[in-house]
Amino acid sequence: MDICDKVVLGDYICILALEDGVDIIGMTRGRDTKFHHTEKLDKGEVMVAQFTENTSAMKIRGKAKILTRYGELYSDQE
Amino acid sequence: MDICDKVVLGDYICILALEDGVDIIGMTRGRDTKFHHTEKLDKGEVMVAQFTENTSAMKIRGKAKILTRYGELYSDQE
Amino acid sequence: MDICDKVVLGDYICILALEDGVDIIGMTRGRDTKFHHTEKLDKGEVMVAQFTENTSAMKIRGKAKILTRYGELYSDQE
Amino acid sequence: MDICDKVVLGDYICILALEDGVDIIGMTRGRDTKFHHTEKLDKGEVMVAQFTENTSAMKIRGKAKILTRYGELYSDQE
Amino acid sequence: MDICDKVVLGDYICILALEDGVDIIGMTRGRDTKFHHTEKLDKGEVMVAQFTENTSAMKIRGKAKILTRYGELYSDQE
Amino acid sequence: MDICDKVVLGDYICILALEDGVDIIGMTRGRDTKFHHTEKLDKGEVMVAQFTENTSAMKIRGKAKILTRYGELYSDQE
Amino acid sequence: MDICDKVVLGDYICILALEDGVDIIGMTRGRDTKFHHTEKLDKGEVMVAQFTENTSAMKIRGKAKILTRYGELYSDQE
Amino acid sequence: MDICDKVVLGDYICILALEDGVDIIGMTRGRDTKFHHTEKLDKGEVMVAQFTENTSAMKIRGKAKILTRYGELYSDQE
Amino acid sequence: MDICDKVVLGDYICILALEDGVDIIGMTRGRDTKFHHTEKLDKGEVMVAQFTENTSAMKIRGKAKILTRYGELYSDQE
Amino acid sequence: MDICDKVVLGDYICILALEDGVDIIGMTRGRDTKFHHTEKLDKGEVMVAQFTENTSAMKIRGKAKILTRYGELYSDQE
Amino acid sequence: MDICDKVVLGDYICILALEDGVDIIGMTRGRDTKFHHTEKLDKGEVMVAQFTENTSAMKIRGKAKILTRYGELYSDQE
Amino acid sequence: MDICDKVVLGDYICILALEDGVDIIGMTRGRDTKFHHTEKLDKGEVMVAQFTENTSAMKIRGKAKILTRYGELYSDQE
Repeated sequence: MDICDKVVLGDYICILALEDGVDIIGMTRGRDTKFHHTEKLDKGEVMVAQFTENTSAMKIRGKAKILTRYGELYSDQE
Repeated sequence: MDICDKVVLGDYICILALEDGVDIIGMTRGRDTKFHHTEKLDKGEVMVAQFTENTSAMKIRGKAKILTRYGELYSDQE
Repeated sequence: MDICDKVVLGDYICILALEDGVDIIGMTRGRDTKFHHTEKLDKGEVMVAQFTENTSAMKIRGKAKILTRYGELYSDQE
Repeated sequence: MDICDKVVLGDYICILALEDGVDIIGMTRGRDTKFHHTEKLDKGEVMVAQFTENTSAMKIRGKAKILTRYGELYSDQE
Repeated sequence: MDICDKVVLGDYICILALEDGVDIIGMTRGRDTKFHHTEKLDKGEVMVAQFTENTSAMKIRGKAKILTRYGELYSDQE
Repeated sequence: MDICDKVVLGDYICILALEDGVDIIGMTRGRDTKFHHTEKLDKGEVMVAQFTENTSAMKIRGKAKILTRYGELYSDQE
Repeated sequence: MDICDKVVLGDYICILALEDGVDIIGMTRGRDTKFHHTEKLDKGEVMVAQFTENTSAMKIRGKAKILTRYGELYSDQE
Repeated sequence: MDICDKVVLGDYICILALEDGVDIIGMTRGRDTKFHHTEKLDKGEVMVAQFTENTSAMKIRGKAKILTRYGELYSDQE
Repeated sequence: MDICDKVVLGDYICILALEDGVDIIGMTRGRDTKFHHTEKLDKGEVMVAQFTENTSAMKIRGKAKILTRYGELYSDQE
Repeated sequence: MDICDKVVLGDYICILALEDGVDIIGMTRGRDTKFHHTEKLDKGEVMVAQFTENTSAMKIRGKAKILTRYGELYSDQE
Repeated sequence: MDICDKVVLGDYICILALEDGVDIIGMTRGRDTKFHHTEKLDKGEVMVAQFTENTSAMKIRGKAKILTRYGELYSDQE
Repeated sequence: MDICDKVVLGDYICILALEDGVDIIGMTRGRDTKFHHTEKLDKGEVMVAQFTENTSAMKIRGKAKILTRYGELYSDQE
């Protein structure tokens, strides 16, 4: 594995699932933007996930609290 | 894949869809500015997306809350 | 595509169109300052756009809210 | 062991288990995102864990308090 | 096009035209300080413009609001 | 011993044992995440410990006060 | 044109002319400190000007408001 | 002696002994974590000690006040 | 002209002449500290001047307001 | 004398002796931690001392006020 | 003249003479610490002076107000 | 004279003598810590002095006010 110098310093977000079946979908960096991984969270689970050499976008589906550098968001809020 | 040193450190924005069918459109870096990817969000979905070696602009269509380094915006607000 | 090291770190602005037909016009970096791209926004659409290796200035026409590092502006305000 | 220059500077999170059997799951950096390690915490145990050259995401299962750069979260909160 | 490493990081100013015919004049970097480009703004138009490898000074003529790192100015104010 | 340039700058945590027999367990950086060292603290002892080229995670067992960059935690709190 | 790496990052000042005929005079960097350029501003015009590879000092003559990193000044104030 | 570039910039802690016989124990950086030095402080003595190329952890035994980047601790407090 | 990399980033001071005949005297960097340039300001004129590869000290004679990174001074104040 | 690039930037502490015969003891960087220098202060004397390529720890004996980046301490306080 | 890269970035102090005959004495960097230059200020004159490749200390004699990064001082105050 | 790149950026302290005969004693960097220079200040004199490639510690004897990055001290205070 050939890793660039700054890779471990990538920013990250925190997701707390507020219901079962929250999806965190990593999308590919590069010319094509495709789903490359989906991680499923059950209610109460937390995930922290960096932007990486393979992931330049993430999508969150289902009810969750999300912490980011620019504030917090509630997905599927009413 | 040949990735530059600082790529994982690109800034990012957060989008919370407030209705079905919100489009996040990545536009190409470089001489031509074209749509290279459209990601559709349903109501309540969240996306976080970096500027990358391929994306130097993004367009958001449909009702959404957007968090950025310079504040928050509501697209399609009334 | 040969991209410099710091390109993904370019600063960016955010534009929220407050009417149909807002134009965001990218102007060329380099000896000549010409329009190289015009992106049209309809009412409620948001665009985030970086300064890039090809774009060192942007022009916004039509009613919009603009977020920048140095504060916010309303184009076509009354 | 061939370690990159910035590796020891990776960011980290802190987890305090609030019940027995909290899982902290390290997920692989790189093309595949797989579980590569699960650490089990009993009630009252604390773990601090960096993002590394092998870990770009972590998942927390079970009741825990989590401290991050962007605030604190309680997994499995009611 | 041969671009230096830090070029995309040049600082920028924001100009909101408060009347028709506001001129933003880019002046050449280097031994000679000459006008190399004039951009005309109509009332309500906004321009954001970086200092670049070719532009080390800008002149604004006509009634405008200008945002800079060091505060805001109104040209042609009464 | 061949040490990388930034190694002495690794972040650290502080642990104050609040009972006898607090364990501070260093876990290996790299592909395998294994215990590589356990340090036992008696009541009242303090340890400060860096993330290093060999340690990318630490586990604390037993009643302790822990100071980190992101706040303080009490392990085995009631 | 052979430009150094950091040139576009030079600091700058902002001048708002409060009367006709304000002079902004660029003075040469290097062994000799001579006038190399005089830019005339009419009342209400604004100029932003960087320190450059050729300009290490500027002189302002006539009534103007000047914004700098260290505060604001009024030339020809009474 | 072959010293790395950043070694003098290592972080440090301050220890004030509040009784005779406080031990400050330096622990080795690297694969093995062993005691490599014990410094004894009598009541009232102060020690400031950096993390170094040889020390990545320190242990304090006995009653002391400890100042760190993340706050202060009292070892052997009642 | 052979200019070092950081030259354009030199710090600067601002001088507002409060009477005719204020002198700003640049003094040479290097082994000898001599006057190498005197700039005369009339009442109301402003000068901004960087430390440069040739100037490591400046002297101000006559009544002036001076802005610096460390506060403001009035020369020839009563 | 062969000095590394960052040596002059080492952090430092300040010691004010509050009685005669305060000792400031420099301890060696490197594999062995030994006293390499003792400086004696009389009442009222002040010493400022950097961490250096030879000193990675200092010990203060006797009544003194000590200023550090992380706060102040009084050795031999009652 | 062979100047190092960071020389223009040296820190500086500001001196306002409060009486005639204030001396600002530059002292040599290097093995010997000798006076290498004395600049005389008359009452009301201001001098700003950098630390340089030749000057690592300065001495001020006579009544003056001195601005530094760490606060202000009055020499010859009563 | 062969000077390292960062030497002019060394930190400094400020000393205001509050009586005649205040001594500022520079102590050698390197294996031996010896006095290499003593500068005498009379009452009211001010000295600013950097840590340098030759000086890694300073001692102040006699009544003085001392400004440092970490606060101010009065030597020989009662």
